[in-house]
Amino acid sequence: MRFVAGKDDLLNGIRIVERATVVKGLQPVLANVLIETIGTNQIKLTATDFDFSITTMIDANVEEEGRFTLPAKKLGDIISRLQEDLVKLELNDSIATITCKKSKFDFIGISASEFPKVEENISEEDSIEIETKPFTKAIRHVVSAAAGYETNNLLSGVVCEVNKNILEMAATDGNRLARVREVVKNNSADSEKVFEMLISSKVLSELSKISLLSESENIKISKEAKKIVITIDKTKIITKLMQGQFPKYNQLIPQSFPKEAKINKSALVSALERVAIMISEKNSIVKFEFGDDMLKLSGDSPEAGNSQDVIDIKYTGEPITIAFNYKFVLEFLKIVESEDIMVQLNTPLSATVLAPVSDEDYIYLVMPVQLRG
Amino acid sequence: MRFVAGKDDLLNGIRIVERATVVKGLQPVLANVLIETIGTNQIKLTATDFDFSITTMIDANVEEEGRFTLPAKKLGDIISRLQEDLVKLELNDSIATITCKKSKFDFIGISASEFPKVEENISEEDSIEIETKPFTKAIRHVVSAAAGYETNNLLSGVVCEVNKNILEMAATDGNRLARVREVVKNNSADSEKVFEMLISSKVLSELSKISLLSESENIKISKEAKKIVITIDKTKIITKLMQGQFPKYNQLIPQSFPKEAKINKSALVSALERVAIMISEKNSIVKFEFGDDMLKLSGDSPEAGNSQDVIDIKYTGEPITIAFNYKFVLEFLKIVESEDIMVQLNTPLSATVLAPVSDEDYIYLVMPVQLRG
Repeated sequence: MRFVAGKDDLLNGIRIVERATVVKGLQPVLANVLIETIGTNQIKLTATDFDFSITTMIDANVEEEGRFTLPAKKLGDIISRLQEDLVKLELNDSIATITCKKSKFDFIGISASEFPKVEENISEEDSIEIETKPFTKAIRHVVSAAAGYETNNLLSGVVCEVNKNILEMAATDGNRLARVREVVKNNSADSEKVFEMLISSKVLSELSKISLLSESENIKISKEAKKIVITIDKTKIITKLMQGQFPKYNQLIPQSFPKEAKINKSALVSALERVAIMISEKNSIVKFEFGDDMLKLSGDSPEAGNSQDVIDIKYTGEPITIAFNYKFVLEFLKIVESEDIMVQLNTPLSATVLAPVSDEDYIYLVMPVQLRG
Repeated sequence: MRFVAGKDDLLNGIRIVERATVVKGLQPVLANVLIETIGTNQIKLTATDFDFSITTMIDANVEEEGRFTLPAKKLGDIISRLQEDLVKLELNDSIATITCKKSKFDFIGISASEFPKVEENISEEDSIEIETKPFTKAIRHVVSAAAGYETNNLLSGVVCEVNKNILEMAATDGNRLARVREVVKNNSADSEKVFEMLISSKVLSELSKISLLSESENIKISKEAKKIVITIDKTKIITKLMQGQFPKYNQLIPQSFPKEAKINKSALVSALERVAIMISEKNSIVKFEFGDDMLKLSGDSPEAGNSQDVIDIKYTGEPITIAFNYKFVLEFLKIVESEDIMVQLNTPLSATVLAPVSDEDYIYLVMPVQLRG
């Protein structure tokens, strides 16, 4: 194998695929990126952690075909520190020699034959093509509400539906639920068809980061019975379609609320962060007392003491005292763009809805915590 | 105890003294700051880790005298998040209530009687008063060459001498030696007297950070047989004078060199950082080959491979191959301000001098590493 490629192209490609590497796994080859020549003017980079894989293509001048794997982290470190110029990579007896101007590296890798096979071909029968920006924006709005992906259960997934020009995404871990709707340009061949999928929240997070490294305005998603392939520009993300019945979350969202507060977001963030100083890491509970155009927040911990703060709000309804894990509330406040937010309440034990006071179609449902004593 | 003070004054005071707290020690009270009213319009903050102590004074309106201790970290967190306004602190039965606008904290502390006694009085017989800026600049130039302070040996100290208007500081850990000389305004009562001290490098590092929080142009240092008190503005740092005979470092610096290189600093930093990617954490050895107006750097590790880079330099003398722990060289390069540096060499096993090509009176001596094979 021997080729010459631009430093920035190579670096960008490595930064994209390295998100799928496994750094401290049992198989050292999974920490590596597979480098393959494709024809005479492209190379392909691949990384995989078995659960998901990323491939990307880079323009190159291929002088001799071949395949080899090199540690992704170290390769990225090397390329990033090279001077701006063409980079030459040449393979001799399991050692890749990288040269750029007067810098030279002899780099020990692992044979490509040890790298797992990544199958990126998929029938394009069930696929959509939509705008990238609203898609990644929707990801940022819901992804943190999903359960941790270590659990590998259904709730670590994100539900995604495209119906004509409406994209809906939702995620829930049982304690909170985030749902967002975005208007998208639907460039699919059959834009009337409803497209649905349940996909790992981790893969979506990586996708939203990768999209920042790509200039493509559109994203294409294809699915088969068990597989999803997402294409942005020259990059493909391959993952499995999660199987099973996701909760019918739209039924969980209450339709009417006897109590409603309108609150300035920044004031609430500051007050919550102040009150939280006195709260122990373990419980994270802040008490919210709504009433008379005032919201009183309070927290306490046996070892440190207690804290309270009062902010002015607009409030309609009977006074209510309710408690939340403040981290869930802060998470919503840090995602939402609107300067003012709505809190819609029923009883101290019922699901409470947080939403922006703006055109955004975004809601965040939080289950309260029962107060003892 | 009851007083009112400005938020920023309080916060600044806590940020200064908390550098002497012990966060996870055996004595919980050492994580606390001692707060004492002094007369009717000042409060005093104190923290100590026994090895060194810091006190500072803050303007306040004292309504009731008293003494109490509160956890420094949490107190700083609370004060920093308060709105800009006056802060009131009131003590009732071992609970300090802090209020500011509509925020209120009941904060559990530890009785002042458990706090160690910090003696800051000192005879001012042997003292100097000099400019702060050149003093802290000198600290930054030498402090990293001292041995780790865990060792608690003489080499963890910094030697400091003021002779009329020349300040000299030096530190060495046996592998490298840094010496700097600065011209200072000497405002001492007896500016003819030579002042010398050996002081912990850790205390000097903290001092240089504290000086950034103070506006004082001058610094006063007083010493007794076993104690040093450094005063900047309303802050005092109290530490012990280190005892013993520091190496006669000026005798260690070679006076003549048959070989000399002039090198662009940025080019050397980039090349060293590139070559270092291939070096294992354990040895940190980079080989330097000087000759013919070129410097070739190379490194290798059995597991990853090897690296080399070549930069253009000005060189006079016979070619020489010498190896260094590259981290020591990088450390010098990141401290020195000059755009070009000098490397003065004797043999592959003798001390090598790094120095700026500028008016700065700063030298950094590095011992080479013996190359095997």
